[in-house]
Parts: sequence; structure tokens; C-alpha cells
Amino acid sequence: MTLIRAWAAPTAGAPLQPFEYDPGPLGPEDVEIAVEHCGICHSDLSLLDNAWGFTQYPFVPGHEAVGRVVAMGPQAKGVAIGQRVGLGWNARSCLHCPQCLAGRHNLCVSVQPTLAGRHGAFADRVRAHWVWVMPLPAGLDPREAGPLLCGGITVFAPLHELKIAPTARVGVVGIGGLGHLALKFCKAWGCEVTAFTTSASKAEEARAFGAHRVVSTGDADALAKLAGQFDLIIDTVNASLDWNGLLAALAPEGRLHVVGAVLEPIPVPAFSLIMGQKSVSGSPTGSRAAIDTMLRFADRHGVLPKTEHFPMSRVNEALDHLRAGKARYRIVLDADFS
Amino acid sequence: MTLIRAWAAPTAGAPLQPFEYDPGPLGPEDVEIAVEHCGICHSDLSLLDNAWGFTQYPFVPGHEAVGRVVAMGPQAKGVAIGQRVGLGWNARSCLHCPQCLAGRHNLCVSVQPTLAGRHGAFADRVRAHWVWVMPLPAGLDPREAGPLLCGGITVFAPLHELKIAPTARVGVVGIGGLGHLALKFCKAWGCEVTAFTTSASKAEEARAFGAHRVVSTGDADALAKLAGQFDLIIDTVNASLDWNGLLAALAPEGRLHVVGAVLEPIPVPAFSLIMGQKSVSGSPTGSRAAIDTMLRFADRHGVLPKTEHFPMSRVNEALDHLRAGKARYRIVLDADFS
Repeated sequence: MTLIRAWAAPTAGAPLQPFEYDPGPLGPEDVEIAVEHCGICHSDLSLLDNAWGFTQYPFVPGHEAVGRVVAMGPQAKGVAIGQRVGLGWNARSCLHCPQCLAGRHNLCVSVQPTLAGRHGAFADRVRAHWVWVMPLPAGLDPREAGPLLCGGITVFAPLHELKIAPTARVGVVGIGGLGHLALKFCKAWGCEVTAFTTSASKAEEARAFGAHRVVSTGDADALAKLAGQFDLIIDTVNASLDWNGLLAALAPEGRLHVVGAVLEPIPVPAFSLIMGQKSVSGSPTGSRAAIDTMLRFADRHGVLPKTEHFPMSRVNEALDHLRAGKARYRIVLDADFS
Repeated sequence: MTLIRAWAAPTAGAPLQPFEYDPGPLGPEDVEIAVEHCGICHSDLSLLDNAWGFTQYPFVPGHEAVGRVVAMGPQAKGVAIGQRVGLGWNARSCLHCPQCLAGRHNLCVSVQPTLAGRHGAFADRVRAHWVWVMPLPAGLDPREAGPLLCGGITVFAPLHELKIAPTARVGVVGIGGLGHLALKFCKAWGCEVTAFTTSASKAEEARAFGAHRVVSTGDADALAKLAGQFDLIIDTVNASLDWNGLLAALAPEGRLHVVGAVLEPIPVPAFSLIMGQKSVSGSPTGSRAAIDTMLRFADRHGVLPKTEHFPMSRVNEALDHLRAGKARYRIVLDADFS
């Protein structure tokens, strides 16, 4: 019998407590990772609070894990014992649906997130199907790479999936965990980058992350002056925005792309799509191949999150820090099980 | 002094009356067309009724004109006196904005529709800038080609602009003037085509136009059974629909594309975009180059509208026929000024 030591919430929104569980026999295609570091994503909080209605308790958060392979089923492929790897939002795909067969494992009709129906990586070990266990490029600092595996790929995906050109004028709405990585990726991608933020205090850092211009999100006059200027606006916040203002800020053929899961429907006037041949779209994280591509790109361009580290034993303090909106810009837990 | 004879509405929604006007000197880059035929588009009715708030009266409708060039300004290019040509939704672009310079004249920031601030083609003659005067392929029947110039390009544009593959599974919502041309273009494009219609009486014809399958638009159960099946749904109707049902009917990476100008905003849940990497988008008619491409494609594949003809002197009868929803499927007026 194997016991995994973890931090779990017994009920919705409750503080995490030490928790041990037996994961059962390792599946023939599965990989077990000894967790060294794990980022905290805002979706860990949403799941902890059961904001999306499908959390099972006790709930072990954590889906931005970096660690070393310690066990492999006999059919597990692509990694080796002792290799440093990462695990992100997804843990399992069917492999045989049209999306999987096309290499789009993240769009698998029965894709299983790391945190749905299984325990996550606020733990000493975590398991996943080998497809979703990503080797880390040797040059990428393992202490800082965790947030790339969910937050990073989420904002890299629009550039990669939509084949955005380096000539594009891109706006990033919300300069937090996702947004600051979006600025860094857009800058490395060669784009003209505008940051939209409600926090004047973040303006200087936004420029350091890669923004050529910083605009206050709440300033309707400033937004109106940007009418027709953006080929792509990536919305990273989970709140309703001045949608008409943002659609008007798009250039002809421009696209408003949401990766922040705002719960209220976005009211989209057909005319504003038709007249300028515009799009409103969204995307989840990324395929395995896209994540591998993102990691190589991040390694080559030095794209890493700006992080604050907490030992995993202080996970509740870290969660409170994130909940209070104080994270600058992504929190990473360092495993310290004794 | 030149007098153009036309049919004009003196006020919003009024029957058309004989009307003469002096268009003034021909602009140096303009072309004058002797109108032989002109399609009636639903937007002629919307403008006649001032549904979009910018109609000027007296108002001469008509923006699907086919005729012969009878006069050219000294800088007019690309056509010759006596040549058979078409004129569609747009009549004038600035030529020097980034969109025009990229050949996207229909997305020009100051594009001027044929019917905004000038008189249309329910007349013996009509004028436009040479860029928007399209030579008709010799094989295309001039009596039937008019509706291609607005209705046709509007539904061809999604296939062309979005680079839809012939392997795509496409749904067309609304089998009217636009929708029946969409079925024909999608069939010629090589796609798997599904027609969505509220009129059971149109099912057989929809199949003849190219639909492999016909589904009742109002049947939520039938729509639910199609979940995840469409790469593209082209919405041609100007009414609110079961948006959530249509979004659910999209396959991963699918797109709901609106060309019908519904006035109420479309409520789009961010989650439904994010999870399947889906898009909601729209487009207007098409660029000059796209219209030329469409006309060649229509000529090669025998794509023409199914029409009913009225002499232009019976224009009010024709408008009533369209207004009553009886058009099968596009009305063309044949000029009969004596």
C-alpha cells in the first residue's frame, strides 16, 4: 500500500489540513511524480470554493506541479525514472477520439482535469497519464516553471492556436497571474503590447513585463480613444467588462479572446461582429504538443513568471494571500513534507 | 444635365414612386451603369423602413445591380464602355487606409454603401467608384447574377475568409435568400451540409440546393442530438435563436458565424467558448477581390440563386411579396423604363 501525503480541504472553502490517501495500484500507462514545487492558480481557489459546482471533498488542490518521475506503469512512455517533469491542468485523455488522434488531447471529449475526481499536487506525490507528463527543458528553472504549466499555456495558447503574427497589436486585460505571463509571451512573440489594468500600482511592472503602453481598464474615455487599434485582445479576468468598448477597440478582423471564465454571458451585438469582421472566442489550456512548444519557447526567451514562494506547510497563508489579491504575480509552493 | 429615372420611397415604409434626379457630373474615378436587372435584398426592406436609423429620403433601394457600363470618368479603371458589370452593397472606399491598401476595401474605415447618402439601383442608371464595379464572368447568366453581388458574397465570405476546408461539417441556419445560396456554395465547396429551417415546406428544396440533412430550427431535441457536430454554423437570419443550443452543436474549435443582423445582443457564455476553443464571429459582404473570386467560383460550379422575376414597374408588388416571406428564394427586378 502506498500513502500519499497531501493538503486537503474537508469542505468547500475550508482551510487545508494534512491528509493522507492511498491512490491504489499505479495504472499501466500512468506516471507518479515526486512533487518539488507547485504553483497556485486562481482556479484552485474556485475549485476549493466549489464555484463551478463539481468539486469533490476532501479536495487536494494543485495542478502546476514540477517534480521528478518516481514510478512508471509498464506502458508509460516519453519520460524516465528520475527525469524532471511537469503536470498541468489535465491528467488524462481518451487517446482515441478525433481530437486526441489529431493531437488535440486537451479538447478530448472525455478529458479529465488533474483535479476532477482525483487528488492534486499540493502533495508529496501526484499521478497522471504519461501523455500529460511533460519533460521540462533543462534550461528552465524548476522552481519557477510550475506556473507555466497552466497559467502560461493558457495565455500562450491564443498566440499559438490563432497563429498570431508578430506584427499584431495585442491588448492584455488584467495583469495578474495569467496577464503578466501574457505580457511576457506577447513581448517575446514580437507584438505591440498594451496592458489594461485596474491597478495603477502595476503600471511600472507591466512595462517591465513587456507592455509598451498601460491603460486603466475602468477608463472609458481612454478605451474610446483606442477604437479600432487591436488585432487581438486577450481577456484574462473572470469579471464582466466594458464589452462594447473592447469590441470597438478591435481593428477590422480583430478578435476578443477570453481565457478568464466570467460566469455572466458576454452580450455580443451581431452588428459589431459583422461590420468589422470581428470574432469573440475562447480557449482552455493547450494540447500536450502546444505545452511542449510553449516550454521550449519560454526557455529560449527567458519567459518565467514573477513568483512568491511559500513552503507547502504554509499553504493556507499562501491561499489567503492570493484570495486577498496580493499575489505578485504567481505563488509557488515548495514541497516540505518531512 | 443628366436625369436618372428611379423608384423611390418618399418616407419610411412608404410605397415606391417614380422619381427622377440629377446625379451631377460624373466623378473622375466613377462608372455609370445602365441597370438591366437588380436583386432585392432583405436589407433593402430594412433601409426602406429605416430599421437601422440612417436612411435618407427620398430613398431609392437596390444594391444587387447588373448592367452595362455607359460612362466612365477619366481615371476609372478595370472596365470598359459596354461591358457587363455588377454592383453590390458597397460603392466607394477611401483606397488609402490600411484595409484598402491590403485589398480589404469592404473593411475600409470610411467605406460607403451603395445606399447610404446616394441613390440605389431601382433605377435606369446607377453610379459607383470603379473599384466596386465588378466585371461579370461571361458564363454567368446576367438575369440571375444580381443576388450573388450582396446575398451571394455575404455567405461565400465565411468559407473564403475563414479558409474553411471542404472536409468541414457546416450548418446553415435560415433557408431564405442568403441561406439557399449558402447551401449551394457549401455544397460546391465540398462540405457536409446541414440546413436548419423553420419551414418544413422548404426541406425538399433545401436538399436540392445541397443540404445532406435538414433539421427544424425550433426542435430543441433535434438540436441537442447534434451536439459537438459542426465545424461551422452560418447564421443567416436576423432573429434571436437558441444560441446555447447552437454553441453546443459546435465541434471542438467550431465557429458560429453570423451574417444575419439580429438586433438583440447574442449572450455568449465564456465557458462554452473556452472549453471547446470555440468562436462567435461575423462578417459583412466581401472585398472586391473576394467578390471577383466568388463570381468565378459561382460560374465554374453553376451556383446561381433560385429567383422570381418582376418587372421593375411592379416593384411594390415585389416588395410586398418579400415582406410577406413568400419569396422563393430571391427576387430580381428587370428594368423596364420606357
